[in-house]
Amino acid sequence: MGRTSDAREKILGAARSLIELRGYSALGVAEICKAAGVPKGSFYYFFESKEALALTVIDEHRAEQERAWRHLLTGQAAPLQRLRRLFEATEAGQRAGQQSCGTVSGCLFGNLTLEMSNHTEAVRGRLQEIFDAQVDLVEAVMAEALARAEITVTDTREAARSVVAQLEGQVLFAKLYNDTRRLDSLWANCLALLGTHAPAGATATR
Amino acid sequence: MGRTSDAREKILGAARSLIELRGYSALGVAEICKAAGVPKGSFYYFFESKEALALTVIDEHRAEQERAWRHLLTGQAAPLQRLRRLFEATEAGQRAGQQSCGTVSGCLFGNLTLEMSNHTEAVRGRLQEIFDAQVDLVEAVMAEALARAEITVTDTREAARSVVAQLEGQVLFAKLYNDTRRLDSLWANCLALLGTHAPAGATATR
Repeated sequence: MGRTSDAREKILGAARSLIELRGYSALGVAEICKAAGVPKGSFYYFFESKEALALTVIDEHRAEQERAWRHLLTGQAAPLQRLRRLFEATEAGQRAGQQSCGTVSGCLFGNLTLEMSNHTEAVRGRLQEIFDAQVDLVEAVMAEALARAEITVTDTREAARSVVAQLEGQVLFAKLYNDTRRLDSLWANCLALLGTHAPAGATATR
Repeated sequence: MGRTSDAREKILGAARSLIELRGYSALGVAEICKAAGVPKGSFYYFFESKEALALTVIDEHRAEQERAWRHLLTGQAAPLQRLRRLFEATEAGQRAGQQSCGTVSGCLFGNLTLEMSNHTEAVRGRLQEIFDAQVDLVEAVMAEALARAEITVTDTREAARSVVAQLEGQVLFAKLYNDTRRLDSLWANCLALLGTHAPAGATATR
């Protein structure tokens, strides 16, 4: 039992690293098993297919990220400060990834959206749920900020979508330019998108 | 000569459609040749490798897009109106793609950034040049708007990057949700990012 579940964890760990590094399509089951150090037979004992493995990688990363986002976005701090913590944590996470593997790996969910969403409906559905949940969390913070008259937007759903889109877009550029400083503008841009009169270029650090 | 260059165009056309539909990694040379209706020998006559083909697809799409962006972003209209035309044209382009192939295919360059940038330095370099050029074009329009005191940002480079990031992020969601209405908020968000006091949720249509 102990060894069996070790093998499953090893496969999941190797798959996640390889997907972050090189995407999903480029990978083969044999390569994943080799990186995990488990025989290929083990793979099909735990996972029906490579797609089933990808869905499990997505689900585990989702659970982990939801815990982190909930922790960052709830609590006693003022609502906008909690949003700021989210951006700082995103930048710190991308920086840590860059230090450990040499390149900014970006957002696993964004990467898989652009790579897989149009040819795997199961993955598309899962990723939609994930981004809906992200928008829900951000929107709840905005509703608090609106109640305190700290922002001027009225459609908090649309505003939350725009903030998450800005986050995904800037993470894409952080990956392309392998430069986490691309994320420095997230806070000022969020304020601008929420109508707090602090537009994009106003507090830029570069 | 006529037949030879036909084959090259057919390979390029098939490769672009297949990359837009399914990404780069999932494709094989045999499949591209089958879709193009040319023998596999022709492929290696024109292209050294699959990567060389991808670079050519990128370069041709880049030339086409640069012409379109230049046309939209220059001319007699007021600078911000030209930016608005860019967003409208982006939405119209994604809608046309959705009508012809059933799903929103997103941005070819954004897709390839997330799929390829971390494992093909030649592609990374090319995509960096492309997004730099997009930011240059948007920044030039912003400089005009700033000279007319129509926007309040002072760092037009950073602001242009943010507008392009917002565009990429919203196109990602249009693809994930297969819904071009995700792009409706681009104009209001652009105004907010530029400090024209029209924040994200203020003029949303949903």
